[in-house]
Amino acid sequence: MAKIDQSKIARKTGSGYPEPYASMMSKRSYLRLGDAGGLTQFGANITILEPGGISSMRHWHVHEDEFVMVTQGEVVMVTDDGETVLREGDCAAFPAGVENGHHFLNKSSTEARFLVIGTRAARETAYYSDVDMKVEDVYGVSTYTRTDGSPMPEG
Amino acid sequence: MAKIDQSKIARKTGSGYPEPYASMMSKRSYLRLGDAGGLTQFGANITILEPGGISSMRHWHVHEDEFVMVTQGEVVMVTDDGETVLREGDCAAFPAGVENGHHFLNKSSTEARFLVIGTRAARETAYYSDVDMKVEDVYGVSTYTRTDGSPMPEG
Repeated sequence: MAKIDQSKIARKTGSGYPEPYASMMSKRSYLRLGDAGGLTQFGANITILEPGGISSMRHWHVHEDEFVMVTQGEVVMVTDDGETVLREGDCAAFPAGVENGHHFLNKSSTEARFLVIGTRAARETAYYSDVDMKVEDVYGVSTYTRTDGSPMPEG
Repeated sequence: MAKIDQSKIARKTGSGYPEPYASMMSKRSYLRLGDAGGLTQFGANITILEPGGISSMRHWHVHEDEFVMVTQGEVVMVTDDGETVLREGDCAAFPAGVENGHHFLNKSSTEARFLVIGTRAARETAYYSDVDMKVEDVYGVSTYTRTDGSPMPEG
């Protein structure tokens, strides 16, 4: 069945980040729509941010394009260019390799949701803009290190 | 600027289909959001269907995943499984290689819009379910033939 039954998709929480960053994602959850529909070439997820929620640490992707459309409420997009409010129907694009990190904050008093589409490359690197961290993804397994490749304090 | 300025995106019309199929797309137009945002790895387009509009001839992709989310109004999705109504927020997924053609009809009395995400493979083949036609895409150049590769009547 091509239609995705969203009532059957479990809401995921948690973060693969090392601390203290994982705990900062406690007001974020997501629905893996694309996985539910059998897609493998790109992710298609709804990110849900409670008031005060943060979508991710601010980051940019080396190899993967990313696209966002707000589907409920409003979020504040943060990039090197500052803050921009995105409301329902607003979209943003982050081409691979553009060294301008982004993330989304819910500064409102109600839940906000947005669709995130991201290519799934076999190997990917992403750099974090505000902290000394990068991630290497190899076939879906993520390894976080300092930007120079040295271990994070907790491992 | 990562936010996509949708007011500056020209609404595209027309179809690359041979006749008589091209004329059947006259009530369809689209906004190329991903192109406007500099994305190349997947398409991210809003398809706009006037009442009576058809999104495409019913088809399935050999190599490319496809994802759809309705953003305004309602459409009727047609697949081998029959007709399914999709309303605002409803999503559907079409994994590459699944031989079950789909398209969308606007049977309502008001405009309908949906977001379409599709991988952009260097080479792609799509087959049409209801007519004797296929398309070969090579780096964005589309060639339509009969399913057996012979020319369409009009060339």
